[in-house]
Amino acid sequence: MLEIALYLIPVTLGETPPEMVLPAGLFNIMNQLDEFIVENARSARRFLKSAGYQRNFDEVTFNLLNKHTARETADTFIDSIKNGKAVGLLSEAGVPCIADPGAEIVKHCHLNNIRVIPLTGPSSIILALMGSGFNGQNFTFHGYLPIEKSQLKTKLKEIESDILKKDQTQIFIETPYRNNQMIDFLISFCHSKTKLCIASELTTENEFIVSRHLLEWKKIKYDFHKKPVVFLLYK
Amino acid sequence: MLEIALYLIPVTLGETPPEMVLPAGLFNIMNQLDEFIVENARSARRFLKSAGYQRNFDEVTFNLLNKHTARETADTFIDSIKNGKAVGLLSEAGVPCIADPGAEIVKHCHLNNIRVIPLTGPSSIILALMGSGFNGQNFTFHGYLPIEKSQLKTKLKEIESDILKKDQTQIFIETPYRNNQMIDFLISFCHSKTKLCIASELTTENEFIVSRHLLEWKKIKYDFHKKPVVFLLYK
Repeated sequence: MLEIALYLIPVTLGETPPEMVLPAGLFNIMNQLDEFIVENARSARRFLKSAGYQRNFDEVTFNLLNKHTARETADTFIDSIKNGKAVGLLSEAGVPCIADPGAEIVKHCHLNNIRVIPLTGPSSIILALMGSGFNGQNFTFHGYLPIEKSQLKTKLKEIESDILKKDQTQIFIETPYRNNQMIDFLISFCHSKTKLCIASELTTENEFIVSRHLLEWKKIKYDFHKKPVVFLLYK
Repeated sequence: MLEIALYLIPVTLGETPPEMVLPAGLFNIMNQLDEFIVENARSARRFLKSAGYQRNFDEVTFNLLNKHTARETADTFIDSIKNGKAVGLLSEAGVPCIADPGAEIVKHCHLNNIRVIPLTGPSSIILALMGSGFNGQNFTFHGYLPIEKSQLKTKLKEIESDILKKDQTQIFIETPYRNNQMIDFLISFCHSKTKLCIASELTTENEFIVSRHLLEWKKIKYDFHKKPVVFLLYK
């Protein structure tokens, strides 16, 4: 029997066999759930099927949580837990609540004294940091940096100063079709001795993790257009 | 056949059944390795045994990487990879290279064009952040805060200002026997409306994750003495 709680359920990052990145215990918990909070019902069903979920989807509830979901609607998603049922919150990629709207649901659980149980799965931020060789004892994840060029330049100067002042790894992401442009900007705006790690398509067959000075990146031919990339800067 | 690379191998956090937090694919990779970089050979052997590692330890190499390891010695640990052999780097708890000396070895791999493959496992920082309900799109991990009281106070003021200015979750850890004192300091030094999440004994039977305003923590009886805790502050 599962504990009555909100289970935070990670999914694969891209086309990876689930057993390479998700623990067996997670599949076991998943199979005991028949109510999920998801961003997209279609991809949630696809993931559950690939992970060996055995229930009939006609008997499963998918509550949609995305930018179109009204706050009041989202707040009702935990009513089942209040009524004594375990519910799962599924991410679209990687772990829930890190770069998706799940955190609001968790916040609401804490306000209602509902237990939240985070389960282990692939976090592209942590995998990238592990693989970078950069400082893992002190780091910041910024999400997306400003798009506007002069704002981006200012932000990067601030970030570079924190690398030196705080000995802190700086991590961020970019919309995949702007990856190459981002690397060009990093080469133009940052110090040539600053190190850039590009961690792309993590956990897949095409995984790429390379740390080099920006001076060296300038000489490398690269193309990360439309690929999922985590960027890391350090000294 | 494994790729010739440095495999970054996570381990359990405390007394958790390995299959609850480690993917089946990881056990498979582990069983193909007979050379490991570890902080402590005894706990490494204990973990490998609990995870069903099938080789005879007499035929396995454990290279010790800890504060007593000279840099020149550590640099030789990747010689086997240069010579065409896959090697594993094991953490003492959770994922390698986040709060342990592994990052130096990874850095050395990048300098020598050796592939690094980070594997998925439990990161107490990410699990705590998922479970907190705090902002997962922008966060900083500080490692340990200053011990000295007036320095700690200054740091906490800076951290609180970043919560508001940057909408950024602030994460840190403390030496386990000073946990209760840290909570007292947080209550004294921070704004009573700042939220504190305490995430303790993650992934174990005693897992505890609670987010409350400091005003409320003041009224709660707690005892986290000697327990592994991740602290998170947010608004």
